[in-house]
Amino acid sequence: MTKRPLILVTNDDGIIAPGILKLVEVMKELGDVVVVAPDKPQSGKSHAITLDATLYLKKTSFGIAGVKSYASSGTPADCVKIGLKEVLDRKPDLCVSGINHGSNASVNMVYSGTLSAAVEAGIKGVPAIAFSLLDYDWNANFKGLEKYVRKIAKNVLEKGLPDRVVLNVNFPKVSKESFKGIKIVRQSKSNWNENFDKRMNPMGKEYFWLTGVFENLDTSDDTDEFALKNNFISVTPVKIDFTAHEFMDKLRTWNL
Amino acid sequence: MTKRPLILVTNDDGIIAPGILKLVEVMKELGDVVVVAPDKPQSGKSHAITLDATLYLKKTSFGIAGVKSYASSGTPADCVKIGLKEVLDRKPDLCVSGINHGSNASVNMVYSGTLSAAVEAGIKGVPAIAFSLLDYDWNANFKGLEKYVRKIAKNVLEKGLPDRVVLNVNFPKVSKESFKGIKIVRQSKSNWNENFDKRMNPMGKEYFWLTGVFENLDTSDDTDEFALKNNFISVTPVKIDFTAHEFMDKLRTWNL
Repeated sequence: MTKRPLILVTNDDGIIAPGILKLVEVMKELGDVVVVAPDKPQSGKSHAITLDATLYLKKTSFGIAGVKSYASSGTPADCVKIGLKEVLDRKPDLCVSGINHGSNASVNMVYSGTLSAAVEAGIKGVPAIAFSLLDYDWNANFKGLEKYVRKIAKNVLEKGLPDRVVLNVNFPKVSKESFKGIKIVRQSKSNWNENFDKRMNPMGKEYFWLTGVFENLDTSDDTDEFALKNNFISVTPVKIDFTAHEFMDKLRTWNL
Repeated sequence: MTKRPLILVTNDDGIIAPGILKLVEVMKELGDVVVVAPDKPQSGKSHAITLDATLYLKKTSFGIAGVKSYASSGTPADCVKIGLKEVLDRKPDLCVSGINHGSNASVNMVYSGTLSAAVEAGIKGVPAIAFSLLDYDWNANFKGLEKYVRKIAKNVLEKGLPDRVVLNVNFPKVSKESFKGIKIVRQSKSNWNENFDKRMNPMGKEYFWLTGVFENLDTSDDTDEFALKNNFISVTPVKIDFTAHEFMDKLRTWNL
């Protein structure tokens, strides 16, 4: 009998979010599941880590039989770090993050705690996948995503991923009957055009809320935004390498 | 008479850090400087943005004649966003971030608020550079860095940078006489091997401090870690594109 895979599950919406519950339900079919997730929402936290404050880790009850679960006061990246070092007794076979409530496609990848958790696992040599549904609603409908989540995770468990590559998966907000399938696509170039909402607090002090309008600057049919707009599930392989290799030769001619 | 360049300066160590003072001193020679920086240390905040809390922006006195300065309660990325939208009346010609107290080379790029500020500017189409010195000390010696900071910034002002590319510059911790010059290098593959320091608070509750040991996994001579170890100043062009393009064809054969 082969050993069941060990799967670390995290997210950025917090351990009580409906999206992580759905993800754990599917992962339970594929292996032994341990949850280490933030004890509160951590959206927009990107790859932040807790350097200047204490970290708490609390054993919790996840409500699914056989699933061990821990809530951490840290960020998604902290959860992966502390999960690997202080919770699991061996390196997991897979780390999955999500299912996020809201898009982590195109420029949102930059701000995403969900994807950053997967990237942190990738840095540690653990195959990892971030899952997101394009619906910010707490009561988002995760029905119909299961078979795709299962298929993608099974494939990664079987085939692995290249060194320092993780997967970023986004689901369009449509009924499951409308899913047109999975498309392998690149990250679209896009931007949030900020619109700061200026207000006055009761003490007469000015403050702001960060809001903005999303603008896609890249309508090519090989992008995540195009796939999602056309009801495809987008899968983007993400590389953990910041280098702009193709600009290095040119930069050398600057004679700095 | 040509117009002086407009330069936005930020950092992640906070507006009172010695490193940003040094950066402003050099930038003042090159253009009109506006500072929008965090009102407190924001190290390790990566590309986090403030979605679920209010943002304050306070006009401050930077102590250098002619330099406008604002302290924000947000992250480095927030500072760039609010600086571009609420402070500056035109798009700046350059955004510089730093000089960071501590390394932002190799895997530190992932966690760096300093670099993320430059990346945020890059997303907005503003040429941007992150500067760091490999010395975490608040009293780090920034002497001797000026001529390199000036040279790199002048080059970027004159030549621009490709779309969605920014520069990440790191200085080794050596006396200025020991600088061997500038090397254009790629990001090294490295890792922080975490070592959680477990303690008990006065209420008997367990908590952790995140600590770790840096391990460079890539000793090639074309990397930032190699350059820095050999007393070169490392310049790495950073691409704002997460896609692992070279894995896409292979991934398509999975038939997801």
